[in-house]
Amino acid sequence: MSSDPASRTDVIAALSELLGERLSTSPSERDLHGRNEAHFALALPDAVAWPETTAEVSGILRICSRHRCPVVPWGTGTSLEGHALAIRGGISLDLSRMNRVLAVNPEDMDTVVQPGVTREALNEELRATGLFFPIDPGANASLGGMAATRASGTTAVRYGTMRENVLALEVVLADGRIIRTGTRARKSSAGYDLTRLFVGSEGTLGVITELTLRLQGQPEAISAGVCAFPSVAAAVDAVIETIQMGIPMARMELLDETVARAFNAYAGANMAESPHLMVEFHGSEAAVAEQADRFGEIIKDHGGGPFQWSLKPEERNALWKMRHNAYFALKQLRPGAVGLTTDLCVPISRLAEAVTETQADLAQHPEMGGGIIGHVGDGNFHALLLLDPDNAAEMTIARDLAHRMAERALRLGGTVTGEHGIGMGKIGYMALEHGPAWDVMAQLKKALDPENLMNPGKMVQVN
Amino acid sequence: MSSDPASRTDVIAALSELLGERLSTSPSERDLHGRNEAHFALALPDAVAWPETTAEVSGILRICSRHRCPVVPWGTGTSLEGHALAIRGGISLDLSRMNRVLAVNPEDMDTVVQPGVTREALNEELRATGLFFPIDPGANASLGGMAATRASGTTAVRYGTMRENVLALEVVLADGRIIRTGTRARKSSAGYDLTRLFVGSEGTLGVITELTLRLQGQPEAISAGVCAFPSVAAAVDAVIETIQMGIPMARMELLDETVARAFNAYAGANMAESPHLMVEFHGSEAAVAEQADRFGEIIKDHGGGPFQWSLKPEERNALWKMRHNAYFALKQLRPGAVGLTTDLCVPISRLAEAVTETQADLAQHPEMGGGIIGHVGDGNFHALLLLDPDNAAEMTIARDLAHRMAERALRLGGTVTGEHGIGMGKIGYMALEHGPAWDVMAQLKKALDPENLMNPGKMVQVN
Repeated sequence: MSSDPASRTDVIAALSELLGERLSTSPSERDLHGRNEAHFALALPDAVAWPETTAEVSGILRICSRHRCPVVPWGTGTSLEGHALAIRGGISLDLSRMNRVLAVNPEDMDTVVQPGVTREALNEELRATGLFFPIDPGANASLGGMAATRASGTTAVRYGTMRENVLALEVVLADGRIIRTGTRARKSSAGYDLTRLFVGSEGTLGVITELTLRLQGQPEAISAGVCAFPSVAAAVDAVIETIQMGIPMARMELLDETVARAFNAYAGANMAESPHLMVEFHGSEAAVAEQADRFGEIIKDHGGGPFQWSLKPEERNALWKMRHNAYFALKQLRPGAVGLTTDLCVPISRLAEAVTETQADLAQHPEMGGGIIGHVGDGNFHALLLLDPDNAAEMTIARDLAHRMAERALRLGGTVTGEHGIGMGKIGYMALEHGPAWDVMAQLKKALDPENLMNPGKMVQVN
Repeated sequence: MSSDPASRTDVIAALSELLGERLSTSPSERDLHGRNEAHFALALPDAVAWPETTAEVSGILRICSRHRCPVVPWGTGTSLEGHALAIRGGISLDLSRMNRVLAVNPEDMDTVVQPGVTREALNEELRATGLFFPIDPGANASLGGMAATRASGTTAVRYGTMRENVLALEVVLADGRIIRTGTRARKSSAGYDLTRLFVGSEGTLGVITELTLRLQGQPEAISAGVCAFPSVAAAVDAVIETIQMGIPMARMELLDETVARAFNAYAGANMAESPHLMVEFHGSEAAVAEQADRFGEIIKDHGGGPFQWSLKPEERNALWKMRHNAYFALKQLRPGAVGLTTDLCVPISRLAEAVTETQADLAQHPEMGGGIIGHVGDGNFHALLLLDPDNAAEMTIARDLAHRMAERALRLGGTVTGEHGIGMGKIGYMALEHGPAWDVMAQLKKALDPENLMNPGKMVQVN
């Protein structure tokens, strides 16, 4: 299916009538919404729309449905697999003006937000309540985008992913119908779990226009620390034992020797050039101290240590700031390079194997060897490859490395992406990972979007 | 749609060829599978099938699909809303012979089981591993049935429901296709969440033939206790504060004055005739003691107490045995009565209101007034009504009371069932709770089961 200019003139005229200046065909806006944070080529929408209400989203979808015009929801554009690119043209539906926090319910520890609210804006709004929203994918993404891509991040080991933290949604379907899924009740056995069907559907089934989210109480005390290990396997074994002992880790990040080297060179760190774990504990003062002590005992048994931990916010913030800036520190290992980042997730018993094999693979191309960072409690890790943008051969090598990572994930009983998603980047692995279940996804897509207008070409394949 | 005897003769012949003696049309087996634990009328299947493999389930569904014969999966028959009744005839698919634990992975803290394994059998099998499966709906249900009905129970406040504890499924679709959803990885952003779509679908989308489940480590220490409150509102306020403080309760059950009275009369208890909370803490010895102390402080602020707690397994077991037998104790308040039990779930800030209104409603019919027991941390509670089976007027009154509970749940922003499910008992509330989202459920059902053969007449309405 390619863009049909004649029909697009009609749809743009109809949308302009609905939205006035909030519908733009300006080259600069189309260009802005045609770019992505990763390595995918520019893909311009025919126009960009900025709805302000659910009714407007519904109106836009009715018009687009009538004209068979694709619609691609846009949050902050921070996804890594080209999710929000209008690869078949159509309308980029920018939800950034739907950015109000509609309700905060401290007794129920939940909040109702519009999709354009970013996670940092929400946490700023919550500051006085003693509550916070824990999911932290790194980027300051919009909550609608985070739900659509089933985002997670460093805190998922304790608080879950968007899957566990969305209680209810309002969604506009391809034909403009507005539905509500779920309620503010914590659980229900009344009907199909439509909330979980839309969480992670990457805009291919409808547009999320409102979210009800679980919140957490700010822990009374937080401690964080870091320790070195002789090998990735030793670090992973320590993690497995920690989880089996029921120590409730709030964060548990693995970084490899390359990342340690980058932190030393570019982030002022003074780490052994070996694998490390960065951890955080949440709880009462007594609980946090006990957890850190017990964790310290476990890592000793696995050759790790010394374990340096602190209750001081400034030391903790410095630690996580360094972690969040790993991408930039790593990129400085190869000045001028562009980064290609990919992720996989396996059962934790296979994680050491997955990391070690990937490291061996990367070692074949030392000039491109970025580092490995993992949300190790989830069995999830990221590899960053550093590419010379003027060397086409390197892109091929990088794609081969990423391809072998995906195959490795499946061979080890895992998934080709723990949190980055499918978008256009990993659609080629869907049949491999899901087999006939991928056909079932296409059947569901066809049932709700028979004309394949919602973010076409992503995640599912219909026709 | 009514049973078509001619066509059923053909289907039974074909199934007999496949299954031999594991296909029965005997009146006694049909009668056994036509009964239910609740008040619904006998509904006989035309035959009962006992498959032993996924391939056989697939073969059965292919045959039934060809003959347009309904298939109703059967676990242990312990559901409360008539889920497993073959109300349009057809085949009762009894999965009790698919009862093997296929794998236990201690490092990954997961297990792979067939659907006929009961939760008690699984926990027996896990005993030596230091792991356990936490979901406890009371009945010794099959794990396939628990997934199909999105079961939860007393421990959901800590460990979640089946929604959070199923990692992956194997499912046979209406046309006999076998699919696998999810992997053993803890998280994924690769595709629609089919696992969560089948969890809670009550057999209307396919037959679950294998489950991968999360396990938990046996806590090092467990303490449990009970305390009285001056009112339901005071107990609920204490619960809200406990959750806001981040005290990780493992169980938190509310019981009203009627239940306390029944426990005193028929379970050897010596409780004040007032609302009570029964609680349990899991963790290290130090953590459990700290949690109990902090909880003790909170309840004092809400007029509760004294808080008696114990680390002794025998005292704890006696407490939860009494809780699990509440139904039987309550029934003795009115000898000869039959029980009608129903549940709802609301945001916890509205729970006191929901319970108090329901108590006032029950007080209009003191002879039928059973008690109220709630999984209060989830905002979920159950009411038991005691009916004279020879008095038709009482069934009408009971239905009215249950109807007002459902309306109350929706008015207070909740759901008509937190854990009992829809089945045939609550299908009349689906449109009310979900609005146009119920139509979306029907669209999904039609996409996967166009002939409406999988447990027809339950949860969704298609024509």
